[in-house]
Amino acid sequence: MEKPSLPKGTRDFGPQVMARRNHIVDAIRAVFQKYGFQPLETPAMETLATLTGKYGDEGDQLLFRILNSGDFLKNVDLHNVTDARTLAPYISEKGLRYDLTVPFARYVVMNRHDITLPFKRYQVQPVWRADRPQKGRYREFYQCDADVVGTDSLICEAEIILMIKEVMTRLNVADYSIKINHREILNGIAHAIGASGKETELFVAIDKLDKIGEAGVRQELENKGFSTEQCLSLFTILKTPGTNQSKLGSLHTLFKPSQPGQKGVADLQQVFELLTRYRQDDAHVEFDLALARGLSYYTGCIFEVKINGVAIGSVSGGGRYDNLTQAFGSKEKLSGVGISFGIDRLYDALDELNLFPKSARAVATVLVCHVDETSLRYGLGVLSQLRSVNIASEIFPETAKLKKQLDFANNKKIPYALVIGPDEIKSGILALKNLESGQQENLPLDAIIKKLIP
Amino acid sequence: MEKPSLPKGTRDFGPQVMARRNHIVDAIRAVFQKYGFQPLETPAMETLATLTGKYGDEGDQLLFRILNSGDFLKNVDLHNVTDARTLAPYISEKGLRYDLTVPFARYVVMNRHDITLPFKRYQVQPVWRADRPQKGRYREFYQCDADVVGTDSLICEAEIILMIKEVMTRLNVADYSIKINHREILNGIAHAIGASGKETELFVAIDKLDKIGEAGVRQELENKGFSTEQCLSLFTILKTPGTNQSKLGSLHTLFKPSQPGQKGVADLQQVFELLTRYRQDDAHVEFDLALARGLSYYTGCIFEVKINGVAIGSVSGGGRYDNLTQAFGSKEKLSGVGISFGIDRLYDALDELNLFPKSARAVATVLVCHVDETSLRYGLGVLSQLRSVNIASEIFPETAKLKKQLDFANNKKIPYALVIGPDEIKSGILALKNLESGQQENLPLDAIIKKLIP
Repeated sequence: MEKPSLPKGTRDFGPQVMARRNHIVDAIRAVFQKYGFQPLETPAMETLATLTGKYGDEGDQLLFRILNSGDFLKNVDLHNVTDARTLAPYISEKGLRYDLTVPFARYVVMNRHDITLPFKRYQVQPVWRADRPQKGRYREFYQCDADVVGTDSLICEAEIILMIKEVMTRLNVADYSIKINHREILNGIAHAIGASGKETELFVAIDKLDKIGEAGVRQELENKGFSTEQCLSLFTILKTPGTNQSKLGSLHTLFKPSQPGQKGVADLQQVFELLTRYRQDDAHVEFDLALARGLSYYTGCIFEVKINGVAIGSVSGGGRYDNLTQAFGSKEKLSGVGISFGIDRLYDALDELNLFPKSARAVATVLVCHVDETSLRYGLGVLSQLRSVNIASEIFPETAKLKKQLDFANNKKIPYALVIGPDEIKSGILALKNLESGQQENLPLDAIIKKLIP
Repeated sequence: MEKPSLPKGTRDFGPQVMARRNHIVDAIRAVFQKYGFQPLETPAMETLATLTGKYGDEGDQLLFRILNSGDFLKNVDLHNVTDARTLAPYISEKGLRYDLTVPFARYVVMNRHDITLPFKRYQVQPVWRADRPQKGRYREFYQCDADVVGTDSLICEAEIILMIKEVMTRLNVADYSIKINHREILNGIAHAIGASGKETELFVAIDKLDKIGEAGVRQELENKGFSTEQCLSLFTILKTPGTNQSKLGSLHTLFKPSQPGQKGVADLQQVFELLTRYRQDDAHVEFDLALARGLSYYTGCIFEVKINGVAIGSVSGGGRYDNLTQAFGSKEKLSGVGISFGIDRLYDALDELNLFPKSARAVATVLVCHVDETSLRYGLGVLSQLRSVNIASEIFPETAKLKKQLDFANNKKIPYALVIGPDEIKSGILALKNLESGQQENLPLDAIIKKLIP
């Protein structure tokens, strides 16, 4: 028999990894809930009618399609089949979720009459993409999204910043930047350098600044027909010096009144002003004129979060969009703003910075050990008492050499062993071994419970 | 544009349902962890080599298969394709997870050298089956499993009973039965009525007792060639009266020494004895000689949990099996025992019995309301103070009529509204409305915080 294997690009998450992933997801979920976001889950499968045409041609190629069940060739005339592309629609009508935004939009359209606006939902589920797997890129990965739809209020943008800060605090990350920009400011820059109508090429190039540097971006723009003067003006603007406030001041002056860009400046000024109403300053928040977020569908504020000191791209990103449900033919225009955290990248960053707390482990606190059948049975009563006060605990379920039991505890990284033998049963004084420090204390069970109670 | 829809047999879980599902899953997860079980997650997709041949022919038919990505007909000569069955292996090599046991076995085989035995894992993930959808049967549903592998100790069986009891207590279910039986006892019964060699037919029939009644089972057995006398003896045994202990006593007498059945009686006796060591009695535990658990692969103790007073089948089931990893050609024999909770059935039962607590809702505790732009901004500072002590709270993000804001809170079932206007700002005394009772209190923010702090 062949050795079993995993489909490429997929992973098992064993106990230690799960405990750490839960540490991250629990922190994010707690913050979302604290800010009034409500949970939603959608099915892993969606109809291909829901999925296709939403992610561009490349996205359509990367959808995992599910073969129709039963006799999927029943209505297919094989003589007319020339290639996979013509056959596919006949044999597959469902695909796997590709992101969390399209299912959310589908949910809103289908449940519009039961939803109270503004609607704040969060969603933590895996998505699947038939991408070529490589380091840090998987075919199955979790997304962790929160969105508000049905309001234009910039309070939502301010709260996204507050939520990011609180997630970082809960994850013990001290050195990070929340980059913020505005699509209208990018439009204003395009206008200011005389490149209106060529925004797409401009933003795609700017978006690569981190990867290919100034010279690379210049090269790409010149290849696309931008003049040397335009590039020069562009980088002069992108390098506007100063604080968030002074940069906004400079742009306010640069962008002519009632021309593209002013709305973006006004929005960001209001977001910064709102933060002060929450009694918060703009620590960690960095107005970054070169933040473009690729070709995404954002129309207002855009965000990206970087953890400093690690070689990992952004761990979170989002922004405001004009019309969530447009793609489903909804006539009502639902504007919204959202943020998405990348669990895998956060994991790698916390791991690299050694920021996982000791408590992020999924093991019992105590292993009850024993030296014979009698102490094993006595141990069951001890276990009951430990568990009655919610101390996670287990017993080695067979009589075995004490060394084997302690090895078991050490391998699982259980922090304490409680050893029971005839003397302990007689005296009622049990031996509590701290397996990390090696120290042993001899205490009655009451005192042990007091020590370990969560 | 066509209205969007869900694939049949799948569901969205909106905020209220999610809160209740989380109430159930959190309770089960907390109990599993308290008993030393560790979390595992496996990918939604498995190779078809892993999945096929594990669930019988019917199971193979019900697997969802994933179409290979890219040009899936590249290596297919369409002239040789006669039907779906011959084509399928060429165009699909992955399928969706069908249960949690096979992926667990695959994980154990692949990670055998990193696993410390006995290994206790729990897993809460969706599975997919291409079954015909009907009331209460879905194509995507969650399973919630805990298994111990690598030990024969009956302490595991006793702890499964304790875990079930604790889950029921946490879910506020008072009236339920944990039915327990043993495969060897069923074998003993077959032997005692002279039906050795026909165990399969016998157990399949007994398993239907709940559905088709005694007459139906008799009929089925007679159709399968069992004699009237055999049926008579069978039901005399199945109806053995008395307590768990006295039933075991009767069977001990009935089964001849060192014949089939005695091992089952001894195992159950030990499980009941172990419960007393945990200082627990056998309340809720019912030795049910007619419990058979169909054609499953169990070899030792078997369990099933029924909530009384609701028209819902078992909400949980499990048992001991001989060899988890056999199907993957592993030479090491890993015996284990597991329990699985059905979230959908538990949900329906709790719903029918009205047992969901008020706290099982996923909304903020307070909505901050305001009467003008100034009080809206003042409210942001109030929000910050509420959130600084982890009171889940939100603000209506636009200036709007107070009625609209209170309607919003009522629709979302937010329990409190905190209303701010010019008078409140001047006096520092805010109006806290309990939206369930309609009562209003006027209090300084400190007192409100003290009242709402979680």
